[in-house]
Amino acid sequence: MAPLTSPKETNRAALFRIIFGTSTPAGRAFDVALLWCIVISVVLVMLESVPAIKARYGHEFHVAELCFTALFTVEYLLRLWVVERPVRYAFSFFGVVDLLSILPTYLSLVMGGAHTLMVIRVLRLLRVFRVFKLVRYVREAGMLRDALIASRRKILVFLMVVLSITIIFGTVMYLVESPEAGFTSIPTSIYWAIVTLTTVGYGDIAPQTWLGQTLAAAIMILGYAMIAVPTGIVSVEIARSGSPGPKCLSCHATGHLPDAVFCRKCGAALPSP
Amino acid sequence: MAPLTSPKETNRAALFRIIFGTSTPAGRAFDVALLWCIVISVVLVMLESVPAIKARYGHEFHVAELCFTALFTVEYLLRLWVVERPVRYAFSFFGVVDLLSILPTYLSLVMGGAHTLMVIRVLRLLRVFRVFKLVRYVREAGMLRDALIASRRKILVFLMVVLSITIIFGTVMYLVESPEAGFTSIPTSIYWAIVTLTTVGYGDIAPQTWLGQTLAAAIMILGYAMIAVPTGIVSVEIARSGSPGPKCLSCHATGHLPDAVFCRKCGAALPSP
Amino acid sequence: MAPLTSPKETNRAALFRIIFGTSTPAGRAFDVALLWCIVISVVLVMLESVPAIKARYGHEFHVAELCFTALFTVEYLLRLWVVERPVRYAFSFFGVVDLLSILPTYLSLVMGGAHTLMVIRVLRLLRVFRVFKLVRYVREAGMLRDALIASRRKILVFLMVVLSITIIFGTVMYLVESPEAGFTSIPTSIYWAIVTLTTVGYGDIAPQTWLGQTLAAAIMILGYAMIAVPTGIVSVEIARSGSPGPKCLSCHATGHLPDAVFCRKCGAALPSP
Amino acid sequence: MAPLTSPKETNRAALFRIIFGTSTPAGRAFDVALLWCIVISVVLVMLESVPAIKARYGHEFHVAELCFTALFTVEYLLRLWVVERPVRYAFSFFGVVDLLSILPTYLSLVMGGAHTLMVIRVLRLLRVFRVFKLVRYVREAGMLRDALIASRRKILVFLMVVLSITIIFGTVMYLVESPEAGFTSIPTSIYWAIVTLTTVGYGDIAPQTWLGQTLAAAIMILGYAMIAVPTGIVSVEIARSGSPGPKCLSCHATGHLPDAVFCRKCGAALPSP
Repeated sequence: MAPLTSPKETNRAALFRIIFGTSTPAGRAFDVALLWCIVISVVLVMLESVPAIKARYGHEFHVAELCFTALFTVEYLLRLWVVERPVRYAFSFFGVVDLLSILPTYLSLVMGGAHTLMVIRVLRLLRVFRVFKLVRYVREAGMLRDALIASRRKILVFLMVVLSITIIFGTVMYLVESPEAGFTSIPTSIYWAIVTLTTVGYGDIAPQTWLGQTLAAAIMILGYAMIAVPTGIVSVEIARSGSPGPKCLSCHATGHLPDAVFCRKCGAALPSP
Repeated sequence: MAPLTSPKETNRAALFRIIFGTSTPAGRAFDVALLWCIVISVVLVMLESVPAIKARYGHEFHVAELCFTALFTVEYLLRLWVVERPVRYAFSFFGVVDLLSILPTYLSLVMGGAHTLMVIRVLRLLRVFRVFKLVRYVREAGMLRDALIASRRKILVFLMVVLSITIIFGTVMYLVESPEAGFTSIPTSIYWAIVTLTTVGYGDIAPQTWLGQTLAAAIMILGYAMIAVPTGIVSVEIARSGSPGPKCLSCHATGHLPDAVFCRKCGAALPSP
Repeated sequence: MAPLTSPKETNRAALFRIIFGTSTPAGRAFDVALLWCIVISVVLVMLESVPAIKARYGHEFHVAELCFTALFTVEYLLRLWVVERPVRYAFSFFGVVDLLSILPTYLSLVMGGAHTLMVIRVLRLLRVFRVFKLVRYVREAGMLRDALIASRRKILVFLMVVLSITIIFGTVMYLVESPEAGFTSIPTSIYWAIVTLTTVGYGDIAPQTWLGQTLAAAIMILGYAMIAVPTGIVSVEIARSGSPGPKCLSCHATGHLPDAVFCRKCGAALPSP
Repeated sequence: MAPLTSPKETNRAALFRIIFGTSTPAGRAFDVALLWCIVISVVLVMLESVPAIKARYGHEFHVAELCFTALFTVEYLLRLWVVERPVRYAFSFFGVVDLLSILPTYLSLVMGGAHTLMVIRVLRLLRVFRVFKLVRYVREAGMLRDALIASRRKILVFLMVVLSITIIFGTVMYLVESPEAGFTSIPTSIYWAIVTLTTVGYGDIAPQTWLGQTLAAAIMILGYAMIAVPTGIVSVEIARSGSPGPKCLSCHATGHLPDAVFCRKCGAALPSP
């Protein structure tokens, strides 16, 4: 087989462009239809988990599930057929997700429908992200992702500090409070510390003694004020990534300040904005 | 009828300027009086929903309600009379809201006062926004709105990520936790995930197993750190929208403060904003 | 009496400088001593409210209270004596607070100690702010206050939007949810909406139906994302107030950008930073 | 002993470089191994506090604990031996932490294992921070620390305001609400105010009267909006500390990006950082 990446202009090639491409109207229509199928089938899985609904519409869910599985199976086989390297696709991330979307239904036909098995079908949701290449929101998502990547070290340091604080506070609370108040072990106390520091505050575990409440107040105010740190980090990164400034025509360097007149890398005059 | 937009200088025209305008003292007085009527009538609807208060002052509420309805009916008919195109007004957003403010009372007189019907009267609150054209806070509101519109795509991407996280975490928790802890179905588990990620934390549904608590801790810290993303987005947009400032005509420098008179770079006079 | 603001150099004048001034060592020592007295007496009031502690140390609390009241009475009379215009002082904010700090104890001696009366003594806490003129944190506090004042309109618009959202969501939830779930009246439902939007989430009132939970999820995500708005507003204001830049030597205009070279008001060259 | 800071090139000196240094491969390997020992031993202490796990693996925990204590004892003695001034090390922060890591086990052998004593071993966690000098995240941590130090006064003012608000609101709620709702004393009411202002919201104490709920709604919205203040402070400080950049020697322009090579204003070469 020749090492060309696009298949020959046959039915297979036309199908490839429809199924994997987004540039043709047919390709875009296919993506939109697929998106709806995925969303509806995921919603069905969710509704099926509600006891009252399953008791009433159990049969209809079963039929719909078989239809969607047949549809996704045809799609999966088509994808396998049209790609150049079927094995590579089958073991790629989306190839595995595609297989996991149809496998549970077939397995449940054979083995009699294990509970856990059926729920795996929610993973179909991940297929939505394949279709998202359609949308123009990708540039925005990329900007946010870049800001997060640029601040990943600062965020890691922050998470390490959060973890240390919750471990130490959790251990101290385990000593201070009694198991009756819910502090039955150090891991449980750390869980409480995370619930409190992140200001979630379920209330299933809550300090009862005055010393415990004082410590809890301290960790609450800490959590309340500390949220400023990741916020500040990300704000600054977004502000930086959001204002790219002019690009040098001579050395192609980017990342200048918006009001820069000369290139910060080669010293050439920058184009006026 | 001639296609002129302002009615002839008759009683009707004078009334138009009072009811719809805000530039004359009478128009402004009308708006303030209307604002008070709306606020008081909405507060009355709220208080009427409290069983103890209704039992005691039921009759007084009924009388006050009839008075306000009469007042709003007169106002509605006047509005219909003074505008050029009554039909267009009647089907506009505020026209429908105005009608909904009086209709429930009349319907309850005929049909015997359905519960739901009476509560619709709270929609009168929306009429408050019509009067807000009076206030000078509109410019500030516009600035905030612009910042939100400018960042709407980033916020949408963020909301989609939040939704995906809550759906996946919710499904996993449904598998991990038992229905006894409150995780009775996937939708309920997703509801729990939203309650936890947004750091609301009611505590009516809370994980009991160590695996569930570990996952819950993960989603809490995620929610605690992720709040930085919308905050960063909006901060940057507000910073951008808040300080455009004039541009120097002589050296083309930008980034001046909004009230600058001379260029901060070359000292030339700036164009007046 | 001559209209001079500082009293003659007598005992009274010396006392004035000690009690009201902070420039002399004696004045500063007086302020520090007063600060401790206030803090200790407030802590005593708090501890006295704990039933177990009051039962045990009731007598000691009573004696300590009489001592502090005697002390504050002497201080109050001294203040009245040393100021130029005693009446003006007595009706000033701090004059009233000073009187409220001692009055409850005397009234309780006469009338037999009403519960509410005794708690008013916590208002002594407000006296702490008088002593704060001592500390150098005032400049920082002033900067924060300026940032808040500069963004007060935006914050008001934000609060009005928050209020409207909670009123509308609260009313809708009153219709959707049953009184058994805690939504007994519209005001209670609005209270629930505020508890949820601000991500506090007590859990004493929580939606039970799927429609109620969906609406609750919407208001949670709204509250989670909306917090970005005040944060963005205040961040931008602090950033602006925090970087004053150079001051013009010719027209004394301030508020230049940090890298400005010419005055934005009169166009004169700015001093280099 | 000569006042040189590095020991002579003997076994002791070689060990010093391995145990305290991070520049040699052996030193780095030692640090990584130590990190794992600390983490595993801390996890064991935590798991031991879970009643069910302790009941089952009590003996194995005891053996593992003895092994780790032996290991840490050898390490402690080695550290004492290789440093120039053993006494100074023994009384330094990390010296005390190192001792506290091994002492509880020995004491429990003598005295029969007090509960509190065993938990102190979690302090081993603090030893992790010694190993962190290994990682390159220190620069990021330093940047965050600088931002916090630069804004420490503003944060202190903010905390003082938070404390005053919670004390005053707590006291008022103590008067307004009954002890049945959980407001049994002023300190408890202040604890409730902190739980509410920081948006934690356990729900174990919650207002029942309409006046209490109105006040609670006020403190919630206050807490929701006030979080903007520390966030704004820290954001601005991070933005400032993050981009000092070099200063141009020819035109004195500042505000360059940290990696700029040429001045953005005059194009002259910048001094290397």
